[in-house]
Amino acid sequence: MSAASKVRREQPDREIVVFERGRHTSYSACGMPYFIAGQVSDSDQLIARKPEVFREKQNIDVRINHEVIKIDVDNKKIEVTNIQENSTFWESYDELLIATGASPIRPDFEGIGSDGIFGLSTLQTGIDVFEYIEKHSPKKAVIVGGGYIGIEMAEALLDLDMKVTLFDMAPQVMPTMDKDMADLIAEYMQESGVNLYLNEKLDRFEVKNGTVTSVLTDQREEEAELVVLGMGVKPNAALTSGTPIETGVKGAIKVNKKLQTSVPGIWAAGDCAESYHLVKKEQTWIALGTVANKHGLVAGINLSGGPLEFPGVCGTAITKFKDLEISRTGLSEKELEESDIKYKTAVIESRTRSGYYPGSDKITVKLISEEKSGKVLGGQIVGFTGSAKRIDTIATAITAGMTAQNIVDLDLSYAPPFSPVWDPVQTAARRLV
Amino acid sequence: MSAASKVRREQPDREIVVFERGRHTSYSACGMPYFIAGQVSDSDQLIARKPEVFREKQNIDVRINHEVIKIDVDNKKIEVTNIQENSTFWESYDELLIATGASPIRPDFEGIGSDGIFGLSTLQTGIDVFEYIEKHSPKKAVIVGGGYIGIEMAEALLDLDMKVTLFDMAPQVMPTMDKDMADLIAEYMQESGVNLYLNEKLDRFEVKNGTVTSVLTDQREEEAELVVLGMGVKPNAALTSGTPIETGVKGAIKVNKKLQTSVPGIWAAGDCAESYHLVKKEQTWIALGTVANKHGLVAGINLSGGPLEFPGVCGTAITKFKDLEISRTGLSEKELEESDIKYKTAVIESRTRSGYYPGSDKITVKLISEEKSGKVLGGQIVGFTGSAKRIDTIATAITAGMTAQNIVDLDLSYAPPFSPVWDPVQTAARRLV
Repeated sequence: MSAASKVRREQPDREIVVFERGRHTSYSACGMPYFIAGQVSDSDQLIARKPEVFREKQNIDVRINHEVIKIDVDNKKIEVTNIQENSTFWESYDELLIATGASPIRPDFEGIGSDGIFGLSTLQTGIDVFEYIEKHSPKKAVIVGGGYIGIEMAEALLDLDMKVTLFDMAPQVMPTMDKDMADLIAEYMQESGVNLYLNEKLDRFEVKNGTVTSVLTDQREEEAELVVLGMGVKPNAALTSGTPIETGVKGAIKVNKKLQTSVPGIWAAGDCAESYHLVKKEQTWIALGTVANKHGLVAGINLSGGPLEFPGVCGTAITKFKDLEISRTGLSEKELEESDIKYKTAVIESRTRSGYYPGSDKITVKLISEEKSGKVLGGQIVGFTGSAKRIDTIATAITAGMTAQNIVDLDLSYAPPFSPVWDPVQTAARRLV
Repeated sequence: MSAASKVRREQPDREIVVFERGRHTSYSACGMPYFIAGQVSDSDQLIARKPEVFREKQNIDVRINHEVIKIDVDNKKIEVTNIQENSTFWESYDELLIATGASPIRPDFEGIGSDGIFGLSTLQTGIDVFEYIEKHSPKKAVIVGGGYIGIEMAEALLDLDMKVTLFDMAPQVMPTMDKDMADLIAEYMQESGVNLYLNEKLDRFEVKNGTVTSVLTDQREEEAELVVLGMGVKPNAALTSGTPIETGVKGAIKVNKKLQTSVPGIWAAGDCAESYHLVKKEQTWIALGTVANKHGLVAGINLSGGPLEFPGVCGTAITKFKDLEISRTGLSEKELEESDIKYKTAVIESRTRSGYYPGSDKITVKLISEEKSGKVLGGQIVGFTGSAKRIDTIATAITAGMTAQNIVDLDLSYAPPFSPVWDPVQTAARRLV
């Protein structure tokens, strides 16, 4: 929708048709845990713009409940199912943008299709969880997977006074962080009442009358009246099969920096498409709202004649568990261990504000630089209120190719309510020079 | 003390003598308003390290209550007054670092020397204000000057339930911001109960029995039981007079990037010394704790053999008035109007968090870029909780020479509790491309 809006602004007379298999457009998927927790009072608040607004105010022909099932590249047309009428038709195009997003991974465990087991992806899945909780008042919740969705849902379900158990087969939560930083998060989750079991593999779900009753791992059985799956996502690239549209990293649709696919006239943007990784210097696949929005803008401009390039991503991400903030950018030590790059790391503990200022709290910053050049390659932050947005300074520095000494030299802001006199990011950088 | 500590770490056997005319070392002058407001319970909390700790743990010969009054450059010695004994002696040096700081400007208005009128500079001046309030319980306070100290003291004195009146002869508060941004601050100060009078010139102080009773401007008389002067600061460079040590911008001591003065073997650092301005590309004078600390580190390394250069400053600063956060970096429109540079500005209003997330509030970002190159020259932020530290992203981008498009492309962090999907800094940048 972001691309469609951009095209409309650039080309007031162009015909724009959008097919959406669900019922909603332009919503904040990231807001779902907070809606489920009751912090956002109405799911409509998560919607930036409804289909009728696109139709009426922007003259964009949005057709919800329509799923595109096939692309005929040679004849420049697509096959579409009208889900409500259960009918199918062909629509022609001059240019096609694929923006099909990503879907939760749902491995084929016994009982995974039962009632009470949810993945989170579309707004509808969030509404489904919310309504299930309203109706059944579950008291025992199990979350499978300790990534972004897993820890955000752990916070949400604790807020709703459930007993929350989280399983992950990895030895840590938050796989995009290094274990030393993830351990700080795990510790705080346990202190806050989450029953956290790492190194445990999901085995199957116990089901009674079609509804989940417990989760079995390779080590225990845990009763569950609600199960949330946070086992990662995969790009929705099925439409490319049987076409010459190439896929790449993790099955995402291959695109160049203009977001063109391998087939002229066909573009891809958002969670279904690749991006270029500015630090790895190779194609990557990152399913995140920020990246998707930038893709939308760039695709929209290029569909209107362009040209604009999307330079790429650093892998920046942020979240929180209760008042513990978490962020990361660039490469982790884990990622670097798999490369040939020689690197140095610094992990420092500092304060979010001047130590004497009320509300000053703990922040831990990990910074990684290339041994030879001193260039900063990655950063990770775990700390209390006011910590995590500091990752933007590191992301900006990495994008600019700055060294740790360059970060030490930065003229960052300081006043007692905001920071120690050396910002924690600089304190970490000082350890690397 | 920061330089002295660095020298000690680098050269364990070097003789280091420090003369300090006051009683305290290594304290946070920026914390004084919060101590006066009662948010910091004890002035000792503002002290990072006491003289006896430097003496005992670091073998640094700190002599408090000793004022250096003369430098004999030819014979490499300084004349020192022992203030308590009222005696004078000469001390020789191999290398000399001048770190005499800055002092509040106290123009020669009638009655300005009276009891109840305070400037804020050393920790002792903060303690003096605190003790005066304890003893006299003033109910009516007048602040002269609407800069950093003025607005921080306005918050502090409102917290203490005083009637607070603030005069500034300029048409705006916060002279380092542009008027459009400063007006947002002024409006909020007035809403919060500050009697704000702009465009009013201080005339004189009414005094009774040696104590201030009212403040007269060119337009009114305002009763005052306590007056705080926030009329700016000037570098303490008097020691250079009668020596070949050159002074420069606003009378600050001229230094190169190594912090050497014009006389070999003599260095200057902190609020008494110049810095290089990375955007103006000329020498500047900025009296701020962050800059002073960096000067200390660089001077310490160079005094120990070095070499290290201090690349310069962007003019980054941050403060708050109650829950309204304020920050700036680079050049303001006001500064640019005085130059030959052609520029573009964008002022946007956005939200600190996703609009639907609890606590989401208003943030205004002003961004300025060079018309021809697109390079970002400056930024200003006024907004509620979570706004102001975003200035660090802009400061980093400016230091790296980034354009507005580069900022749009940055991979900044987003999750509903932290930001809209386009960070407000990027929303401003989008208006400039």
